[in-house]
Amino acid sequence: MKYRSIALLFALLCTSVLAEEGMWTLDNLPRQALARQYQFDVTPAWSQTVQKASLRLAGGCSGSFVSAQGLVLTNHHCVSRCIAQLSSRDENLLEAGFVARELNQEAICPEIEVNQLLDISDVTQSIHQTIADLSPQQAVTARKAAMSELEAGCGQGDHKLRCEVVTLYEGGRYHLYKYRRYQDVRLVFAPETQIAAFGGDPDNFSFPRYALDMSLLRVYDEGQPVQSKHYFRVNPAGAQVDELVFVTGHPGTTRRAFTVAQLVSLRDLILPQRMSYLAELRGVLRQFATVGPEQERISRREYLGIENTLKAFRGRHAALSEPGFMEARRSQEYALRERVHDKRALRKTTAGAWDEIAKAQLVWRDIYTDYSMLELMRGYQSDLLAIARHLVRAAQERPKPNAQRLREYTDAALPQLTQRLFSAAPIHPELERLSLGWSLEKLREFLGPDHPAVRLSLGVEAPQALADRLIRETQLADLSIRKALWDGGAAAIAASADPLIEFARRIDGPARAVRARQEQDIQAVVETNSTLISQARFQLDGTDNYPDASFSLRLSYGQVKAWTEKGREIEPFTTVAGAMARATGQAPFAFPPSWLAAETQLKLTTPMNFVTTHDIIGGNSGSPMINRKTELVGLVFDGNLHSLGGAYAYDGRYNRAVAVHPAAMKLALETVYAADHLVDELFSAP
Amino acid sequence: MKYRSIALLFALLCTSVLAEEGMWTLDNLPRQALARQYQFDVTPAWSQTVQKASLRLAGGCSGSFVSAQGLVLTNHHCVSRCIAQLSSRDENLLEAGFVARELNQEAICPEIEVNQLLDISDVTQSIHQTIADLSPQQAVTARKAAMSELEAGCGQGDHKLRCEVVTLYEGGRYHLYKYRRYQDVRLVFAPETQIAAFGGDPDNFSFPRYALDMSLLRVYDEGQPVQSKHYFRVNPAGAQVDELVFVTGHPGTTRRAFTVAQLVSLRDLILPQRMSYLAELRGVLRQFATVGPEQERISRREYLGIENTLKAFRGRHAALSEPGFMEARRSQEYALRERVHDKRALRKTTAGAWDEIAKAQLVWRDIYTDYSMLELMRGYQSDLLAIARHLVRAAQERPKPNAQRLREYTDAALPQLTQRLFSAAPIHPELERLSLGWSLEKLREFLGPDHPAVRLSLGVEAPQALADRLIRETQLADLSIRKALWDGGAAAIAASADPLIEFARRIDGPARAVRARQEQDIQAVVETNSTLISQARFQLDGTDNYPDASFSLRLSYGQVKAWTEKGREIEPFTTVAGAMARATGQAPFAFPPSWLAAETQLKLTTPMNFVTTHDIIGGNSGSPMINRKTELVGLVFDGNLHSLGGAYAYDGRYNRAVAVHPAAMKLALETVYAADHLVDELFSAP
Repeated sequence: MKYRSIALLFALLCTSVLAEEGMWTLDNLPRQALARQYQFDVTPAWSQTVQKASLRLAGGCSGSFVSAQGLVLTNHHCVSRCIAQLSSRDENLLEAGFVARELNQEAICPEIEVNQLLDISDVTQSIHQTIADLSPQQAVTARKAAMSELEAGCGQGDHKLRCEVVTLYEGGRYHLYKYRRYQDVRLVFAPETQIAAFGGDPDNFSFPRYALDMSLLRVYDEGQPVQSKHYFRVNPAGAQVDELVFVTGHPGTTRRAFTVAQLVSLRDLILPQRMSYLAELRGVLRQFATVGPEQERISRREYLGIENTLKAFRGRHAALSEPGFMEARRSQEYALRERVHDKRALRKTTAGAWDEIAKAQLVWRDIYTDYSMLELMRGYQSDLLAIARHLVRAAQERPKPNAQRLREYTDAALPQLTQRLFSAAPIHPELERLSLGWSLEKLREFLGPDHPAVRLSLGVEAPQALADRLIRETQLADLSIRKALWDGGAAAIAASADPLIEFARRIDGPARAVRARQEQDIQAVVETNSTLISQARFQLDGTDNYPDASFSLRLSYGQVKAWTEKGREIEPFTTVAGAMARATGQAPFAFPPSWLAAETQLKLTTPMNFVTTHDIIGGNSGSPMINRKTELVGLVFDGNLHSLGGAYAYDGRYNRAVAVHPAAMKLALETVYAADHLVDELFSAP
Repeated sequence: MKYRSIALLFALLCTSVLAEEGMWTLDNLPRQALARQYQFDVTPAWSQTVQKASLRLAGGCSGSFVSAQGLVLTNHHCVSRCIAQLSSRDENLLEAGFVARELNQEAICPEIEVNQLLDISDVTQSIHQTIADLSPQQAVTARKAAMSELEAGCGQGDHKLRCEVVTLYEGGRYHLYKYRRYQDVRLVFAPETQIAAFGGDPDNFSFPRYALDMSLLRVYDEGQPVQSKHYFRVNPAGAQVDELVFVTGHPGTTRRAFTVAQLVSLRDLILPQRMSYLAELRGVLRQFATVGPEQERISRREYLGIENTLKAFRGRHAALSEPGFMEARRSQEYALRERVHDKRALRKTTAGAWDEIAKAQLVWRDIYTDYSMLELMRGYQSDLLAIARHLVRAAQERPKPNAQRLREYTDAALPQLTQRLFSAAPIHPELERLSLGWSLEKLREFLGPDHPAVRLSLGVEAPQALADRLIRETQLADLSIRKALWDGGAAAIAASADPLIEFARRIDGPARAVRARQEQDIQAVVETNSTLISQARFQLDGTDNYPDASFSLRLSYGQVKAWTEKGREIEPFTTVAGAMARATGQAPFAFPPSWLAAETQLKLTTPMNFVTTHDIIGGNSGSPMINRKTELVGLVFDGNLHSLGGAYAYDGRYNRAVAVHPAAMKLALETVYAADHLVDELFSAP
């Protein structure tokens, strides 16, 4: 049978890491491969610069210091939420772009937090000792408590520190990451969305590409720009084909260690439901935006985010459905199970692990929709209601000892939560009514009108009417009321007659119940058994491997490289001339006025975007691409369609990262935006 | 392994037909089972009444004669298109309902065609001889030509006859069905959508249920009601639990004979894409309807149709993803392949059939999106554009000999096509612009902006701007212009400067190309090899089985019966009292004013809806449910959620058909609608 041989090949290939595959943690870099393949030695100084100049945007992106004065380079789409928040009915900065010509014009982003990694320590032993001999259900609770305690001990109440225990290798390792936390982050430069996202959704996750998806932030401390000793100098020459380059950044989530049963849950249950939900919401927002320019403005960012997620989900679903893929994974899994079975000690501890995980997937089938709608609030889409829930839950959780709280209310988590909770960013009632009304309809649709949580939520009201009433009558848009409820704790919450607080109180029981069920019957089982499998892998194959992505700092290495698509070679670089050829004048293929005005002065051969073989995934957006000399030679902003399958497997023949070329940044800042001060700060020799 | 035993059980169960499973053709009824199990003998007279009183609505539903004066009972949702077409800005009949108090108030449905089955003849030998020794690619063309010729010979140019060759058992049998065609069909009675679809989408495909999903039509010939000798008298007593009852009707499509590879295509490729597409369109229409009552009115029917399809697709996808389902099918298939392999003659002809079908699925993966967007026009959603394409293609096809035309332009097919093409039903430009603009965006999204067909379609125009221009400038809303283009043929089409005709001409090449590819590389391969498998089944297991549904007349038998859902027994009957308890006053759980006004006079114990074990599927909507005496004791309008999996397998423990009880019809006509003349016509003894 043909599948057999493909599967076998796949299984053989995957027993060792492929060249250029891997999102490596800084404490376990592939030094031998780099030395052997590229004659490159990782020095302590090099590592130190990489670690300290690379930054994490806590909302879900990457970035890096690019000057000694705290200037940060990241993607436009990583800060578009801030740009929208700084906009108003009169001034749409997503449309118009933004350049601060002086420090005092730099505008505070109300919800951006930047993290700089100071230190990594191994806490595996401590956690493993805590959970030794516990049942999976006891372990899941004890593990969280231990993590919260380690984080509190590391952070020591200092809000400028952020400590996180990172789970690696499915619990085979736990590391404590200590970050410097910056919450005063200001917008310095953003081009217009028209050029930042040129090609829009049609070109997203594809290549050739022509987007200036960049923005500049500056990190402040005590009201002054931070002095960033470690930074990457931008080299406008970029990188050459075949040159060794690195990407450092914060890939969010991959599922390469998932068992077949877990992948099947994604393919058959979770992704189809998510795609259908997001597609409908996209349709709703598309029409909402046609009502008028103000509706367009206030919904634009969410719309683009949905488009992006939807396309990513479709790519992942296609990867999981690729003929032969699941069969190959099944063969690999079978081979590993055989090897486990052949070792007496492993057989005893681990032979049943895969079946336990598979049984937990049957529970997912029963409760996923409830979990998604109630606990993940997909039946309650509203920023104000999310705030209400946080206020209600925080009032219950904060009085508890740190280790016993839900993880999102531990001391280590509170600064980021309160930054969002007390953000002055505008919330738009019209959009709130729309998304809450629509999502309450989905709540009823997916759970059925007779589900107890649906009856509790709707009573006899129609979903949209209920949403209209709640948003109209709530006072949570008022920051002082939120603060009073936060400070007043449980008593204030119990006494509040705010309809959204009342609603959040009312619906919290079912949500907490399904969360508990998920933790006990799925998470506990999966964690315990995945750790067993991971430990078996360590025993059988050693530790020269990288863990699944976890939104912690990783390094990947690779090269600028063409690839072949249906027999046609895709050149690795695009140019300004290519962008002009693609511009039809119609969105999303229209230049903004600033580019049209500068058109004749733009050097046509300037490289615009390029592709590399780096192994990246969502969360790597904004990652610096650097050369051996730690010069910044590219800005990662996307991957090609094949890279979406990277969630489950890396294939160096097809997976490509997509980056903005530094020459395009220089050209734009100089010629289009006349931002010479930024050109000086970014490109002049130190 | 647990899967093994489930799969084995399934395989054993499925080698013979389960009690009450089956959508039987009238020439191959399960006489033995009926005699043995129910002591019921099918007499020629009984068969004759069943055949002649059962009707097909050519648009995709079932119905039946219920009086000697051509009165037809079917579902409200089967004629909602007509009701919408008879509505206007001033009078929304979907909302207000409709009662013709005299014959001259009965209103012509512009696009409804009713078919009465006159005769079935077996043409298997003729077709099999035609395609003997041909390659699959030659056979697919020859088969269509032979079918068109047989149809033309049978119809003999008489527009009142409709002849169709029906493919049964995947080509193991071909039958020629000769129908009496009626195109003068008038609306007699329709309740308000509020009560016809009480519970709306939340209650759709579920039970308990409280919907009066009925309507009455009357068939006319030469301007007079037809004298319908064969009809089902309605018996308000309905059916009792465990009594033998029959459903006769026109189930549309089931896929129970699909190979595993075909089912995987549905699960992983086709259904996810369809669900995502429809979900987004639903979101678009939801918002469109909020603009105002007129937008709500003109989009309502399409919106409800999408909701219904979406829910059905989700149910089917869930059935295909059910743990163990695909494994069981794989085991069954494996067992059949083994048996084929064991017979020398079969091995030679048929052993490779499954792999050939699997290979064709790989082609589907390559071209499905093109086929769906271009040929099925999911990238071109517009009634006017569909008309334009028909005009363009008909001009190319009609001059060809009948046997060489695309199937939808054969002589047998033209009357239904021209009824729609020259229908005076209103087309709403605002809705046309919306759906065309949105779908052109999907065309670009799914095929990519660089796809040749996308470039050909859009040029440098933005999708919505192009749609606006085409709909604004076309004159195809004018019936006389359509007729002139039809009559003028190829010369008129070539000379036309109508922008929609120009557009339809321009995009026809790529659509025909992908259709040809689909026919040659998928349809041809699947047809030839499915027929081989079907013939092997005949050889191995005999012919005491039923074929997959094909929108031809079928009979299924069963009983009123409760079922057990998650440990709880679901009672088979609901009552008017239950409907009142469920009415919140908010849509879709609100009674219409007529019911509120009559509320105190309604007998609370009147049965409203009920469930039976009949094996039905979409297309059975409007089917009569009859007893041994051919009395109508129910009106099928839906199935429960489990019945959606009936597309792939019937499970008598859970699958249920949902029907309107005749007592509820009588109560409503008498008490709510004061339609005594209809009560007399329906319920008085003959």
